[in-house]
Amino acid sequence: MDQLLLFLTYIAVIASAVSGTLEARKHEMDIVGAITIAFVTAFGGGTMRDLLLGRTPVFWIIDPWLTVAAFISAAISFYRAKGISNTPLIIADAVGLGLFSILGATYALQLQLSSIVAVLMGIVTGIFGGVLRDLLCNKIPHVFRNNTELYATCSFIGTWIFIIFTWFHINTLIASAIGATAIFILRLLAVRFKMTLPAP
Amino acid sequence: MDQLLLFLTYIAVIASAVSGTLEARKHEMDIVGAITIAFVTAFGGGTMRDLLLGRTPVFWIIDPWLTVAAFISAAISFYRAKGISNTPLIIADAVGLGLFSILGATYALQLQLSSIVAVLMGIVTGIFGGVLRDLLCNKIPHVFRNNTELYATCSFIGTWIFIIFTWFHINTLIASAIGATAIFILRLLAVRFKMTLPAP
Amino acid sequence: MDQLLLFLTYIAVIASAVSGTLEARKHEMDIVGAITIAFVTAFGGGTMRDLLLGRTPVFWIIDPWLTVAAFISAAISFYRAKGISNTPLIIADAVGLGLFSILGATYALQLQLSSIVAVLMGIVTGIFGGVLRDLLCNKIPHVFRNNTELYATCSFIGTWIFIIFTWFHINTLIASAIGATAIFILRLLAVRFKMTLPAP
Repeated sequence: MDQLLLFLTYIAVIASAVSGTLEARKHEMDIVGAITIAFVTAFGGGTMRDLLLGRTPVFWIIDPWLTVAAFISAAISFYRAKGISNTPLIIADAVGLGLFSILGATYALQLQLSSIVAVLMGIVTGIFGGVLRDLLCNKIPHVFRNNTELYATCSFIGTWIFIIFTWFHINTLIASAIGATAIFILRLLAVRFKMTLPAP
Repeated sequence: MDQLLLFLTYIAVIASAVSGTLEARKHEMDIVGAITIAFVTAFGGGTMRDLLLGRTPVFWIIDPWLTVAAFISAAISFYRAKGISNTPLIIADAVGLGLFSILGATYALQLQLSSIVAVLMGIVTGIFGGVLRDLLCNKIPHVFRNNTELYATCSFIGTWIFIIFTWFHINTLIASAIGATAIFILRLLAVRFKMTLPAP
Repeated sequence: MDQLLLFLTYIAVIASAVSGTLEARKHEMDIVGAITIAFVTAFGGGTMRDLLLGRTPVFWIIDPWLTVAAFISAAISFYRAKGISNTPLIIADAVGLGLFSILGATYALQLQLSSIVAVLMGIVTGIFGGVLRDLLCNKIPHVFRNNTELYATCSFIGTWIFIIFTWFHINTLIASAIGATAIFILRLLAVRFKMTLPAP
């Protein structure tokens, strides 16, 4: 179980670091700016989760290899990415969204918190890194804009799927995989078909 | 006493959620954006207070009904508010400012911290939700602008009134009510008569 | 040792409060806005450090005289600063950057954390106050912009110097002084000679 969480954390951190770096490159930042944005995107959501739940020192302080992984991912994607297309950014972002949402809900459930709070923790952990990334690039966070494709909503739905599965005592590995995959696919579908919420 | 604090917290959360939703509507956000802004406005100040004081898990994680209350308030004010006038926004914001200021000071005093720190905690708890709300809408926070009517100053004065009352062992219920009401009225007067601080 | 840390904290807080006030004046804020920006700049980095490490209540809550010192520094520099030249702002900012970086690394080492994490803590503590200051003034943080002179890089180098010195069991007082001075001088040199990182 702990092994699984650690593995998911590494993938989520690497994907988010890549998405942060690509976003930073679009804003013509230098390598320090890009690495900072990468760190913030990769660690922002999980840090907020750990602070809110009182799990300190936070996760990336306890495991220094996470920062090494984020650093290397950011450096490689900074110097390798040539043409700046949006597709890799959206895929990396969707991977991070899916995994961090499930991780957030899992840690909340471990503390015996209610399902509502676990879903909230999932959403916060999933989207907060991206929100910070956008704020540091000084634009209204993607997730809050009116004409944006579904984002937090994907996290909301997938996290509920995961939690309902845990109610039925389904194997955590399977439940996590299905929840994260649901979020990932929903997000890509939302971007592909420009699915938005109805305006008021 | 705990009952009173809980009651005040609910009113403050609901008022702040409403003010967040109305602000989000002014920026043409969709329902997810509006609810996110509502949550941030409602829980931002108290979360910062709990994190700084080391009271984790933070208050809205422990009591899941708070998030339900914020959610419902946000949804109702999102779909109900028709014409977007400023008055309900200012009133809801002033209620949240008054109550959260007193709550912040109260929790600091419970930890035997000094009066100066209690006032600071009151101000932080009172204004931080609104600051985050403004930041997420990508504008210079209201409270920091030069020509703004008194805002943090109202919290400062009312919190001192509350703390001085506690020095004289006046009943907490009465002291809280007077402090919060003073902040509320001061804020409305400041808006009505465009009271500002002298520029340098 | 604790005496030394306290002394360094006071100087760092005062320098950062001054730099925050001068930045706020450039944006034509009133005295409340200026003092808020001063507090955020002075306490932002150390607060983030304490939260991430789980050292709560955070440092300025435990020692109320720190807030008094920040308040007085902000008020004096708000009403005294006449012509608004950039030089005092840059010097005050560089002092804060140097001292807070070393303080952040020191506290991480006290918790037996790895050197990589200590350097990261140094950078976070050093730059975070300035990042928040810039965000609250609603501009892309200085440190992240493409054509900016070296900033986080100075903190990175100086903190490594400090940590390498501690590996050789050199007196902490001397190691701290050399590390902080290196950051301070590097930063001033970077501004003077417009040293930047190579663009991608």
